[in-house]
Amino acid sequence: MFDNSFPNSILNNNISSLKNSPFMCNGDNFSAVAEKTGHKYKQITEDDIENLKKICSSDRVYAREGINEDYTHDEMPEYGKFAPEVVIEAISTDEISKIMRYAYENNIPVTPRGSGTGLCGGSVAIHGGILLSLVRMNKVLEFDEENLTITVEPGLLLMDLIKIVSERGLMYPPDPGEKSATIGGNVMTNAGGMRAVKYGVTRDYVLALTVVLANGEVLKVGGKVVKNSSGYSLKDLLIGSEGTLGIVTEITLKLIPAPKKVVSLLVPFENLDACIETVPKIIKSKAVPTAIEFMQREVIEAAEIYLGKKFPDKSSDAYLLLTFDGNSVKEIEEIYENVANICLEAGAVDVFISDTEERQESIWSARGAFLEAIKSSTTGMDECDVVVPRNKIAEYVKYVNKLEKEHGLRIRTFGHAGDGNIHVYLCKDELTDDIWKEKCSRIMKALYDKAIELGGQVSGEHGIGHSKIPYLKESIGDTAMSLMQGIKKVFDPKGILNPGKVCR
Amino acid sequence: MFDNSFPNSILNNNISSLKNSPFMCNGDNFSAVAEKTGHKYKQITEDDIENLKKICSSDRVYAREGINEDYTHDEMPEYGKFAPEVVIEAISTDEISKIMRYAYENNIPVTPRGSGTGLCGGSVAIHGGILLSLVRMNKVLEFDEENLTITVEPGLLLMDLIKIVSERGLMYPPDPGEKSATIGGNVMTNAGGMRAVKYGVTRDYVLALTVVLANGEVLKVGGKVVKNSSGYSLKDLLIGSEGTLGIVTEITLKLIPAPKKVVSLLVPFENLDACIETVPKIIKSKAVPTAIEFMQREVIEAAEIYLGKKFPDKSSDAYLLLTFDGNSVKEIEEIYENVANICLEAGAVDVFISDTEERQESIWSARGAFLEAIKSSTTGMDECDVVVPRNKIAEYVKYVNKLEKEHGLRIRTFGHAGDGNIHVYLCKDELTDDIWKEKCSRIMKALYDKAIELGGQVSGEHGIGHSKIPYLKESIGDTAMSLMQGIKKVFDPKGILNPGKVCR
Repeated sequence: MFDNSFPNSILNNNISSLKNSPFMCNGDNFSAVAEKTGHKYKQITEDDIENLKKICSSDRVYAREGINEDYTHDEMPEYGKFAPEVVIEAISTDEISKIMRYAYENNIPVTPRGSGTGLCGGSVAIHGGILLSLVRMNKVLEFDEENLTITVEPGLLLMDLIKIVSERGLMYPPDPGEKSATIGGNVMTNAGGMRAVKYGVTRDYVLALTVVLANGEVLKVGGKVVKNSSGYSLKDLLIGSEGTLGIVTEITLKLIPAPKKVVSLLVPFENLDACIETVPKIIKSKAVPTAIEFMQREVIEAAEIYLGKKFPDKSSDAYLLLTFDGNSVKEIEEIYENVANICLEAGAVDVFISDTEERQESIWSARGAFLEAIKSSTTGMDECDVVVPRNKIAEYVKYVNKLEKEHGLRIRTFGHAGDGNIHVYLCKDELTDDIWKEKCSRIMKALYDKAIELGGQVSGEHGIGHSKIPYLKESIGDTAMSLMQGIKKVFDPKGILNPGKVCR
Repeated sequence: MFDNSFPNSILNNNISSLKNSPFMCNGDNFSAVAEKTGHKYKQITEDDIENLKKICSSDRVYAREGINEDYTHDEMPEYGKFAPEVVIEAISTDEISKIMRYAYENNIPVTPRGSGTGLCGGSVAIHGGILLSLVRMNKVLEFDEENLTITVEPGLLLMDLIKIVSERGLMYPPDPGEKSATIGGNVMTNAGGMRAVKYGVTRDYVLALTVVLANGEVLKVGGKVVKNSSGYSLKDLLIGSEGTLGIVTEITLKLIPAPKKVVSLLVPFENLDACIETVPKIIKSKAVPTAIEFMQREVIEAAEIYLGKKFPDKSSDAYLLLTFDGNSVKEIEEIYENVANICLEAGAVDVFISDTEERQESIWSARGAFLEAIKSSTTGMDECDVVVPRNKIAEYVKYVNKLEKEHGLRIRTFGHAGDGNIHVYLCKDELTDDIWKEKCSRIMKALYDKAIELGGQVSGEHGIGHSKIPYLKESIGDTAMSLMQGIKKVFDPKGILNPGKVCR
């Protein structure tokens, strides 16, 4: 049922050989890939490189052996390493417009990239061509405290954005775990994060975008307005499009006044079932936590090893971590006391309250290290980022645990229990490549099938990139996929914008 | 600059003659309209009517003289009256799928319609064909208190939805003034309302949609999930598309726990300038009101006459009406006391606190009657629904007042000061048709130009319909417009879905 023909998916890749030869794609490979997808791109010549150096300053154009190996992959090198032919570190909308015009005229693919912290291969130049790094475009263009908006360039790191707005008593509510991601990457994947339960996701805070289209035209969509019914929402189409419809060069974000007080509860449960089954009870109680995360002992232990720091409690198998925010301690107290009682009635062993920054930090830093901790504990990994209705979380996690036993493969799970977004990590450990590939393929299919069966979606926040396309196709069906392909063609008739991603 | 060639725009319509002949379009007129837009639709025959009666029960298919005059226009008959050839009151997704398949095969235009409370001609069959009424599809399909979602049919009235969810202690936050609109109409125009300041707009609460596409295919987009990064957001593209990309037949909405306490402040100011200039100060103070409306004495007086009820205060020229909500009186008190002080410092004459339902009702019922009150005070009307950055509201309203004086035409203004959305009503009163048309045309152009100059958008919440297309085009430019047209073509290659609306 899946389209496994894509040459570099995890399903038919030899990971260990990739490790030995990071630059797996030479010109011939690009042609082979292009042929499979029906696109014929121009191979970049010395003339092209010279012309691109004329558009940009030559010290920001890297070619061939001058390209850093980091640019050949994102955080999942398991999905294949692909060398771009040229890397350009762009510095302005105008420059990107000129680069795109050149690429359009010459039929050269362009892959935009932020920090490269993605997990689906979205910022990897799988067709070669130009890798357009946006990390130098990291300026704050305007801070508008009357409209509570900030306009920034896409390369600004999430951690820097958070710092800048919080210094003025404001908050940018989305809170993805990876703080060294760029805000441009967040917008292009519609990143979610911990606080979606109460505050929603990146999409809900993007007011306006400036994008460079495939042919170099500059388009502004949206505005510093909180309401808009002026035709189709091109802005919402661009959010989450992973750079396949346009290259975002300016972003206006909505900010909100920062809550004055934040309290976290760490709630140990005797077992996973009791833990996760408590979540719909909390939601039904009409309490509004900012975040509800669930975590299991094994993952906490991995984080302790990774960070070299002790977690406050390790007596139980499964934990809920809840956060509440508001403008007064009293207001929050009322809410969390009610939630604490719900947890205790549902079988919680205890409820630990963290109301100081230090205590919260000790818990949340562990939570923030889960991905890296799991990664460092194994020789290879595959991941899935499904989202299901939040009252189905328990059923889903139990299913994952069943798969782990059935297939004899170590699986680690954690995630955003409050919004139904679960991260599942398959660990290769000591398995041989063949066994790993075979198990991985079967388990991944089972994981996605179950999510769809429960009314879920393929990706809650990581996106599709090139690695998740077969699952997306299977999940949304031919009609939705062909609408997406039609839209792609409207924006990018030559197929040069981040080709091979999302839909192809 | 504007495309004024459209045969039935306010700019070249004779309103008084329309009033004498409501069924202005016969078959020949349809052909004329179709020719101008490059589409050739089939004229509906007796055979077609019989076939449609076979698809639906015959008592829900109305043809020719059996069609109620109400179906020839929305709340702005000034934009032209157009008789559909057939009206069908559909009752299911399956039935609509069959109707669309028939329409697609036979090249018959289909215009979906809810309560017909729109203000831009969006639900009027300007090309004839089938008018598809969705008002009979008004069932609640599922109330999911674990996920805090409700799934409804599009014909459910907003007032009924509000009642149903509030009975369970929940809230559907968007609060458009017109409570007899259908939720389907709200979704298709991305309706805004009073509470956008704090809670956002319709888009922010739509989790999933079932739509019937132009060829009769049924597509489900989104899901009961609060996060989603699974390809282009077709859901967000459909929201606000005014029935031009698909016909929505099921809607899943996100609900939130209802706040336990609501307090309104009515704040009289000596003059309009002081009144509106207070708004950015409130926003900047980081208070988060649920709503900030502004109103002037003339509009309040019109509402008093229309409702036959007295407004609590009429001593001033200009008022702010603010609402705050939360879970305790104390929590709200702290916030509104701070805001009350800001208002007084900024020149407010007084601050009236309404903390009982009755007192709030007396104020908000007047606010809710503004549109009808202005309408009933004049012989003809044109309106605009621009949105500007909220710190530009004062500048915009002053500009409107200047236009009123310059052009000697009565203009009434009210709106959502907290979110920058301003409703401007031009009143014909005793002007002759020619003078009215000429003044109207010039003032409308000036109103839209000013909004764009201030970084605003053509429509904050009413949509585009057919009447605002020239202004949309002028505002967003050729590139955005041609992307929208391209998208339209992907969804509706034959141009049969609500033709002549949004983009053509």
